[in-house]
Amino acid sequence: MINLDHISANPLLPEVREAMIEAIREPQGNPSSQHTMGERAAEALERARESVARLINASAPKEVVFTSCGTESVNHAVKGLALANAGRGRHIVTSNIEHKSVIRSLRWLKTMGFQVTSVPVDARGRVDPAHVARALREDTVLVTVMHGNNEIGTIQPVEEIARIARDRGVLFHTDAVDSVGVVPVDVQALGADAVSFASNPFYGPTGVGGLFVRKGVKVQPLLDGGVQENNKRAGTENLVGIIGMGVAADLARRDMNARLAHLKDLRETLLRDLPAHIDEYLINGDPEASLPNLVSVSLKYIEGESVVLMLDEEGIAVSTRSACASGSLRASHVLLSTGLEFADAQGTLVITFGVDNTGEDVERFLAALKQAVKTLRDLSPLYRKAAKA
Amino acid sequence: MINLDHISANPLLPEVREAMIEAIREPQGNPSSQHTMGERAAEALERARESVARLINASAPKEVVFTSCGTESVNHAVKGLALANAGRGRHIVTSNIEHKSVIRSLRWLKTMGFQVTSVPVDARGRVDPAHVARALREDTVLVTVMHGNNEIGTIQPVEEIARIARDRGVLFHTDAVDSVGVVPVDVQALGADAVSFASNPFYGPTGVGGLFVRKGVKVQPLLDGGVQENNKRAGTENLVGIIGMGVAADLARRDMNARLAHLKDLRETLLRDLPAHIDEYLINGDPEASLPNLVSVSLKYIEGESVVLMLDEEGIAVSTRSACASGSLRASHVLLSTGLEFADAQGTLVITFGVDNTGEDVERFLAALKQAVKTLRDLSPLYRKAAKA
Repeated sequence: MINLDHISANPLLPEVREAMIEAIREPQGNPSSQHTMGERAAEALERARESVARLINASAPKEVVFTSCGTESVNHAVKGLALANAGRGRHIVTSNIEHKSVIRSLRWLKTMGFQVTSVPVDARGRVDPAHVARALREDTVLVTVMHGNNEIGTIQPVEEIARIARDRGVLFHTDAVDSVGVVPVDVQALGADAVSFASNPFYGPTGVGGLFVRKGVKVQPLLDGGVQENNKRAGTENLVGIIGMGVAADLARRDMNARLAHLKDLRETLLRDLPAHIDEYLINGDPEASLPNLVSVSLKYIEGESVVLMLDEEGIAVSTRSACASGSLRASHVLLSTGLEFADAQGTLVITFGVDNTGEDVERFLAALKQAVKTLRDLSPLYRKAAKA
Repeated sequence: MINLDHISANPLLPEVREAMIEAIREPQGNPSSQHTMGERAAEALERARESVARLINASAPKEVVFTSCGTESVNHAVKGLALANAGRGRHIVTSNIEHKSVIRSLRWLKTMGFQVTSVPVDARGRVDPAHVARALREDTVLVTVMHGNNEIGTIQPVEEIARIARDRGVLFHTDAVDSVGVVPVDVQALGADAVSFASNPFYGPTGVGGLFVRKGVKVQPLLDGGVQENNKRAGTENLVGIIGMGVAADLARRDMNARLAHLKDLRETLLRDLPAHIDEYLINGDPEASLPNLVSVSLKYIEGESVVLMLDEEGIAVSTRSACASGSLRASHVLLSTGLEFADAQGTLVITFGVDNTGEDVERFLAALKQAVKTLRDLSPLYRKAAKA
């Protein structure tokens, strides 16, 4: 199986796997217990927190809260910041191309009396910071704009947006689930009050996420209960997963540059060789500011899902878009927001590379894609009509 | 290390460990993906759901939602049922001895305009169903009373309470985190609308919980985002953990009776032999309806925490109370609710057995306890004063 759908599921790195297996084989301790077994668990937990804090350059490990996934982090940040600081106002600014976890958290906040202004993006999927500035009101409490988009790869000018928010005394959160550990994210340089991320994008396990909350920033817990995670997130910790995330964070920091070079290579090879294999396609996203592991291509006259299934038969995994949304039938709101036609949005493939991919994977993908596109277009009435014209 | 603090952290059963290790070694798939890797992951997820549904006798696997811990399940159930059904009213009935996850979820709901009536318990920690009946109002939307108490072991008359709620058209939730997989819990016989539970109490991994929501019952998601878990809980699944939970559920169902007999044996041995080792103590809880794995003993004139530390030096892990609360300095609200004196509450040990304990563990514990109690009481001014009198 060639995995070109890393954004749906990254493999675990061997070191991560071994650390998790070791943690599974050892006695299970609860970090909150007062005895030796508990202390050992607490030490492992804090070691992982330090590793994650280093990866994002938090000023202290305490600024990192472990969660169960990127979605939990986003819900915690968006709902928790808005509710805890509602005294300032009940207006929130966001963008049109957020992940569903942000969109639906905001929808929930609307039922709680909040108002939301969503700023548009340009054809490359980029938010204009000036739009954010203009959307701010006296009662704006929070700006939430994502870091790297999970469908088209566009990286937003988050530093600039964070500065605009800060200058107006407004909190800034960024959903960096597909950026942290993939591209350098320095939470201090970024100037965000909260940053959501997850472990799997940098080859740690699923079922573990992280939330950076800058010291002094008030955020309501999403999970109320015990005093775990410095009182920010109740619940017995997924220690095996957290240990895996810690190791993955260390490796991501160590290997960041090599990985970026490798991914850039694969991405450029694909973009360079694509025209020799297919025609009538569009590349989505921002060529100047993109996640290094993602290519979004809209194939005219055919359905992306049919291509996914045909490539699957060839042992190649790709996606039409983020796995979280693939149960949904509608065209991607992200693609439509960039001005793409509905039909082209339906013909979109998201190819995401990982450290385990090789140049040969790209070759095999291109050959299989060529065949699949030809087969499907031969069957497509739209294509035949267009070809005649 | 002798683990007599199973309620804080149960070991993983060998079969659970092996299943998790296998899942870690295999390619990681995302159950939401449309290709073969995704399908395999989705199948594993649904197999685990079926195992868990069988354990609690849900009428369909779809009634089981996987969460990240018991605390998430409780937050999801309590907040989600109250918010989704607030049209009926904004009054909730609970008991005085709930876990913090329930107490704090209710405290949060109060900030959202809900009112809460908390019914008392008797000296055994038992809720009188008649008190629940009297507490119901026209605008009561939810009754939430826990199943087995995590500090004193008392099992509540939940069937009766559920019936009272149902007869009045009021939703019923029970926090069964320390009961499911430990004692038989049949959600259909119980008649609950929602039941919260977790994987570790039946020797599955931490970081995975479950929430039963009866078909047709409306509950707001706690995590908004993608369409995972039949739209009830967004977020990429902790598949390794869920696979472990599924295996643990199968084993719990298979071995329930043997485990109950073993735990009963250990518990009875401890209670029988305790008087020969120490005096001036109280046993908390309900001798007629108790979790089979828990003994709560209040040792007069000394501090429970000192005993924990001394036993730890002898390689024996016990707890003063649930690990989730051990960061807190106050005396247990559960013990105080049963009418225990503050000082006695401070002198309380919670001993929790597991399938891996033996009669010899009990002997060693009793010998070490005798020594610890003697040493501490010799140093206790209170004890000396009482001894003189």
